[in-house]
Amino acid sequence: MTARIGVVGGGQLARMLHLAAVPLGMELVVLDPDPTAPAVAAGARWIPGRADRLEDLEQLARSVDVVTLDHEGTPADLLAELVGAGHRLAPGPRAARLGQDKVAARRCAERIGVPTAPWAEVHDLADTERFASRHGWPLVLKAPTGTYDGRGVWSAPDRAAAAAAHAEVDGPLLAEPLLPLDRELAVLVARSVSGEAVAYPAVETVQRHGRCDEVLLPASVSPGLEAAARALAVRMAEAAELVGVMAVELFVSGGRLLLNELATRPHNSAHLTIEASATSQFENHLRAVAGLPLGATHAVVPAACMVNVIGPADGSDPFASLVDALAVPGARVHRYGKAARPGRKLGHVTAVGATTDEARRAARRAADALGRIEAVVA
Amino acid sequence: MTARIGVVGGGQLARMLHLAAVPLGMELVVLDPDPTAPAVAAGARWIPGRADRLEDLEQLARSVDVVTLDHEGTPADLLAELVGAGHRLAPGPRAARLGQDKVAARRCAERIGVPTAPWAEVHDLADTERFASRHGWPLVLKAPTGTYDGRGVWSAPDRAAAAAAHAEVDGPLLAEPLLPLDRELAVLVARSVSGEAVAYPAVETVQRHGRCDEVLLPASVSPGLEAAARALAVRMAEAAELVGVMAVELFVSGGRLLLNELATRPHNSAHLTIEASATSQFENHLRAVAGLPLGATHAVVPAACMVNVIGPADGSDPFASLVDALAVPGARVHRYGKAARPGRKLGHVTAVGATTDEARRAARRAADALGRIEAVVA
Repeated sequence: MTARIGVVGGGQLARMLHLAAVPLGMELVVLDPDPTAPAVAAGARWIPGRADRLEDLEQLARSVDVVTLDHEGTPADLLAELVGAGHRLAPGPRAARLGQDKVAARRCAERIGVPTAPWAEVHDLADTERFASRHGWPLVLKAPTGTYDGRGVWSAPDRAAAAAAHAEVDGPLLAEPLLPLDRELAVLVARSVSGEAVAYPAVETVQRHGRCDEVLLPASVSPGLEAAARALAVRMAEAAELVGVMAVELFVSGGRLLLNELATRPHNSAHLTIEASATSQFENHLRAVAGLPLGATHAVVPAACMVNVIGPADGSDPFASLVDALAVPGARVHRYGKAARPGRKLGHVTAVGATTDEARRAARRAADALGRIEAVVA
Repeated sequence: MTARIGVVGGGQLARMLHLAAVPLGMELVVLDPDPTAPAVAAGARWIPGRADRLEDLEQLARSVDVVTLDHEGTPADLLAELVGAGHRLAPGPRAARLGQDKVAARRCAERIGVPTAPWAEVHDLADTERFASRHGWPLVLKAPTGTYDGRGVWSAPDRAAAAAAHAEVDGPLLAEPLLPLDRELAVLVARSVSGEAVAYPAVETVQRHGRCDEVLLPASVSPGLEAAARALAVRMAEAAELVGVMAVELFVSGGRLLLNELATRPHNSAHLTIEASATSQFENHLRAVAGLPLGATHAVVPAACMVNVIGPADGSDPFASLVDALAVPGARVHRYGKAARPGRKLGHVTAVGATTDEARRAARRAADALGRIEAVVA
């Protein structure tokens, strides 16, 4: 049995999928316009083409057993056409949409009784002011689609800031009050065609400057809250009819879990599963989309920490300091093979340890050696 | 910094080196006659050519920063010629010879006072009988070079069996008494150009039918003996002037450590470092040959077990049962992408756990699901 898995997009997620596919004897084929895309450089088979061209998607689909996604950039109507033409797609268009559209994800949560922050779809400043009159300023305004790493998200302390956000976007926004957060969690859940679903232990995500800076395992929450987070993630996966893996991002506010958003693909918050878990998120994604039994999700180490490596503001390559990062005992460096650009996610560092503090110290030392996110903030 | 690492041979060791090279941003280039070699299928760059042709080796060496070895099949004189022509080779010819020639390895051990089993180089039956008259029958006779997975090793209970072994081989043999063994250990040691050397915790290797069947971490020996095994391995690496990794295979007989043989490359006995160690043997080999700092070698889990997956006697592919192996919780399957042949090493399974028993149960269940070594024994 050699499953051929097609991936729309050859970025770092596809690259790490390839590294997980090789030991399983699967072949990864990526659709990407760029012959130097991270997954292609790692050895995945390459089909040149674009995520927004049906004929390219069909060429990929004809070459493989099942098509999956490296990013949210494939238009929903094209995904539906692929399925209509009889190609296997995992996740399917319904689940993929929940990863593409924050409003759809919130509606899905409400339908199955999963709590979210108070929110509304606001079409103009008048809508937004009505929402603020009920929930108070400051608000957070988010573009429902196309947001990434802090782009498409506005902090709106007042009417003027909200007006500026509306002026930037052609279409509705998602409004929510700026909640006091205890912390943010993420749960990675895998679900296979058969309906088998498994959740990884919840991790804690630490945001800086609007994007994920570090991820800690275990999350410092009570066992009860952690179990509730996992159960919530499995319910969302079932509601989404997910096939593959999905990251469920959660706020903890006043001790309550609130759904923030979904990513229906392997996710940055679960990169540490490569080192810390019985089965990595990448292997479980492959197993799920190929219809194989899912792997165990328990942590095999007491604690782990992942820190992202971001391109600094001066455009230099943080991996010019690779030697210094490798000198940190226990740090595992993951380069994505991307050209350095300010603010671009170029890799990550993971460390495991007896405690999250120990793991965090090693991961941060290595990431600091590479010149970290501070450098990108002008 | 993108180091380009050349590997003579594109087998499973080169395949796993490639998987370790990608996150470090290194490029692996393999020399192999076969375009479907395991490392090529995994995405390593391919130069067609043979390990015993100088011009092919030189073509590889010209394309890369340093050349290393996937197997012992490169003639020593060609390795020397490469170095003579100014190419970087790691391990160098001196260390490589200790992995190719059991007699050279024993002599090296004796020179630095590392104990070995009693042994002699025997040129004919008369030599062998003289050795037996001092040490008694039964003996074990080994071809000094070219042995692999039990080939080139003869159990000689008596004169007639010894005569048969000599008749098979054109050249001297290495004779040793069949020692009563407490157990067999292996220590993987990495040493870099700078002379920095690190040893992994000793593992226990369990042989069946003359070849390694399973590997257990930790070895069930006293802390003192384990530390002595590591120290011995580091001394051998220094004596060999090793650059790269080396497996030091040891007998424990009557509570004493005796050097058995050396492999101056990544080794089957250390495949479990992928899951069980702060840094895998493959990453440390790459770091060593590229002149980077070596990674930490401590175990990050309490215990681990690896079981080899061997092609059964009927020529069938054990991975036809992949689904059953993947259904075993915690088992990690590694396929080498090789066509099934009776007796061929086609992959391995690793599991980690709280105890060696727990890890062993999971690894064996998965390997048994694939139809294990029993099947190969006619």
